[in-house]
Amino acid sequence: MNLPAYDALTTTFTRLYHYQHLAAIVSWDQAAMMPPKGNEARGAALAELDVLLHQTLTDKSLPTLLEAASQEQLDAAQRANLREMHRDWEHASLLSDQLVQAKSLAGSRCEHAWRTQRKANDWSGFLENFRPVVKLAREEAHVLAQANGVGCYDALMDKYEPGSCSADIDVIFGTIKTWLPDLIGKAGAKQVNETVIQADGPFAVERQRALGLELMGLLGFDFDAGRLDISSHPFCGGVAEDVRITTRYSENDFMRSMMGIVHETGHARYEQNLPRASVQLPLGRARSMGIHESQSLSFEMQLGRNPAFLTLISPLVKKHLGDQRAFDCDNLARLYTRVKPGFIRVDADELTYPAHIILRYEIERALIDGDIEAEDIPALWDEKMMAYLGLDSRGDYQNGCLQDIHWTGGSFGYFPSYTLGAMYAAQYFASIRQAHSDLDQRIAAGDLSAVFDWLNDHIWSQASRWETKELVQRATGEALNPAHFRRHLENRYL
Amino acid sequence: MNLPAYDALTTTFTRLYHYQHLAAIVSWDQAAMMPPKGNEARGAALAELDVLLHQTLTDKSLPTLLEAASQEQLDAAQRANLREMHRDWEHASLLSDQLVQAKSLAGSRCEHAWRTQRKANDWSGFLENFRPVVKLAREEAHVLAQANGVGCYDALMDKYEPGSCSADIDVIFGTIKTWLPDLIGKAGAKQVNETVIQADGPFAVERQRALGLELMGLLGFDFDAGRLDISSHPFCGGVAEDVRITTRYSENDFMRSMMGIVHETGHARYEQNLPRASVQLPLGRARSMGIHESQSLSFEMQLGRNPAFLTLISPLVKKHLGDQRAFDCDNLARLYTRVKPGFIRVDADELTYPAHIILRYEIERALIDGDIEAEDIPALWDEKMMAYLGLDSRGDYQNGCLQDIHWTGGSFGYFPSYTLGAMYAAQYFASIRQAHSDLDQRIAAGDLSAVFDWLNDHIWSQASRWETKELVQRATGEALNPAHFRRHLENRYL
Repeated sequence: MNLPAYDALTTTFTRLYHYQHLAAIVSWDQAAMMPPKGNEARGAALAELDVLLHQTLTDKSLPTLLEAASQEQLDAAQRANLREMHRDWEHASLLSDQLVQAKSLAGSRCEHAWRTQRKANDWSGFLENFRPVVKLAREEAHVLAQANGVGCYDALMDKYEPGSCSADIDVIFGTIKTWLPDLIGKAGAKQVNETVIQADGPFAVERQRALGLELMGLLGFDFDAGRLDISSHPFCGGVAEDVRITTRYSENDFMRSMMGIVHETGHARYEQNLPRASVQLPLGRARSMGIHESQSLSFEMQLGRNPAFLTLISPLVKKHLGDQRAFDCDNLARLYTRVKPGFIRVDADELTYPAHIILRYEIERALIDGDIEAEDIPALWDEKMMAYLGLDSRGDYQNGCLQDIHWTGGSFGYFPSYTLGAMYAAQYFASIRQAHSDLDQRIAAGDLSAVFDWLNDHIWSQASRWETKELVQRATGEALNPAHFRRHLENRYL
Repeated sequence: MNLPAYDALTTTFTRLYHYQHLAAIVSWDQAAMMPPKGNEARGAALAELDVLLHQTLTDKSLPTLLEAASQEQLDAAQRANLREMHRDWEHASLLSDQLVQAKSLAGSRCEHAWRTQRKANDWSGFLENFRPVVKLAREEAHVLAQANGVGCYDALMDKYEPGSCSADIDVIFGTIKTWLPDLIGKAGAKQVNETVIQADGPFAVERQRALGLELMGLLGFDFDAGRLDISSHPFCGGVAEDVRITTRYSENDFMRSMMGIVHETGHARYEQNLPRASVQLPLGRARSMGIHESQSLSFEMQLGRNPAFLTLISPLVKKHLGDQRAFDCDNLARLYTRVKPGFIRVDADELTYPAHIILRYEIERALIDGDIEAEDIPALWDEKMMAYLGLDSRGDYQNGCLQDIHWTGGSFGYFPSYTLGAMYAAQYFASIRQAHSDLDQRIAAGDLSAVFDWLNDHIWSQASRWETKELVQRATGEALNPAHFRRHLENRYL
């Protein structure tokens, strides 16, 4: 089949893929390897690459090629690829070079200052840099919203979870709010009488790392195609052919790095198992941030905190960290399901986590839609922390609205992805359990193939072949259904 | 002063600097961090970047800007900058995109296969991939030679050591050949009666690394602007703001990694001390490969193997590797000046090293100038190994003409830089000793400032301000004078 326009597009998008490879590796290096004095030159090099990426994606030949390719005899996969190319091009072309550059500069200035302002609890200092970030994000949202006929906040959310809309999220989060506080209360009451043994540290970093590597191996991480390193904010980076996950260690707390590694390994296996034939094209990349989180949370929440899995790994924990009663499987399960409302999202337990997300969603949505201004955030934060988690956060910006990195760089609309991911993961596991009534016995016995095979067949290998809604429908036989998430939580915590 | 053309050029060359930053970091990563399955995608991304660099440097606006800038009222530093820009542009623009790409592909194919062919002693298999490499290198040399009115080999050597020519090298190497064999013989005879205590290993990698880090600190390496890692072929990479040096460890041999780190730290301090105000421009980069080697060899040969320095570090070696008589300062000095002709260049001692270089220079020059063909190399190699080092290398390609990576990737004309660097270093230290008659006492007492200050004032801070000849003349008061090198060797080995 002769597809001149489509072929020309794949050439351009392959070039973009090569440029993105460079961005991914040097960004990983910046977080995991780079000494402090390298930061300025690195920032300049990355900004140059951003400009190059934007220019390549807005090359004036692209609209004609996209239009011509849509008239060519494409098969279904090629058509899906074209859909993704079109989305990339449209998003980039709606934004001017000036806006892209101004956003990048304002975001990096705000984020850089935030690193010290957060520690100093300096909300008013932060506000000064944050106002231009909000202004530019609104400008971007406005441009995208106009072009796509959606609301401003929806236009930003679409970047991370294409096809999502706040009307749906409102319904989902609205429902969660009706049952979550009660569930948190009941779980807390039940746990009052539980005996939980705290582990007796310290645990040397090298031992924690050795345990983490063994867990990664158990979870199928391909060490010939990736690495484990350290960074202050753990993430999964690199490229599909070479996935770099990071963690951070505290000698007094083995729990966070251990489960953090399980979480990032979920992200990593998605990337490592994207279809190799199309990995350099939009068709072959991960579907969305929500689906990406559904992989890390499948590993961390559905598998990792499952008592069957903790039974499986209890001997490994003892092997690396010492033979303590705290590492008995039932105690590990109690440690990893302990419910306690707290101020910090990333330290939250599975049950209170959605409250942190809903709070942020409601605030950032109002902010982008212009219903509130940046200076209104602290009061709203305090009000919602009290309402959803019963905590008084007044005056503590450091552990309040200054705690997350997302807004500082202008990433509004990302937060819902976390809870969407948790709900997708619960829905996947409902399907897996339906196919395998003995799932927990298999897991406890070390056979994780039912989980990996299902995820590979339904998610990893599908990449961006389908829009998110269709992907989930095909995988589980129904649209996103938050009832699975509620049932999972009730089963585990009641 | 209004300098529109010059300013436009600095904008373009700053962009090139940013692209080169990306190339430097991902290349370092490829050698030091990347897992094996990442190689193919990395190669493709780096080739894309090569194309981008070549296109940027051959943009059709450049000749006009270079011409216009030469008519502007530039100061002396700006004029030096323009000279370097012109050199970069001219070299790139003489080569077609096709030749650049063909060279890159043939070189990476040959190098990739060589990694196994070397181990298999497979000269004839290597020859097949090597012939196209030679053909393309000759093509490049011919194009450059025609344009610059020089010989073919000289045109390639100019890439690494601008301004050098084989007529000069012939005289220098010709002179060395008159006295070196005799000196090697006398040194060997003298050492027959020396008692040398071999160190009693093994030495754990972590201990060798700790020793290396302490030596780097002693030598002034800025750890906030660089790192030490591991790679199979040690090198100094990264960027001036973030210098990455590597080494390799053998548990049975502390000597190689220890002195290797001293060597790479010499390269690193040059980069770390290039003038920050112009580091993003050709003016601010290291002068040449020969001058770069003169820094690493100032550290390794002039300073590192000097008994005064070994007196200084003997307690550090004992601290990290254990208290053995082998680590007494006089024994360390004997270990690090032991003369023994061998087959492998990178394992050669200071005295026999030039013989390895002269042999390679004579062969590669004849090859590029068309006096011999690739298949003639082994016989010539054997003949020269016997003549210069008295060793029979027949049939052993692995430890003969297949041992180096340089030719496999098409880097002809680099080898002379090593011995030029050794001679420059000897000449610098003659100047430093003239200014400080108590240099060795200072060094033994831990005061290295005389060395560092001299190198900083005369080499590091000068970057590419002067052509090599003028740089050396200004620094030492005379042109390159190999007599210093001979005197240094005679003082140390007779």
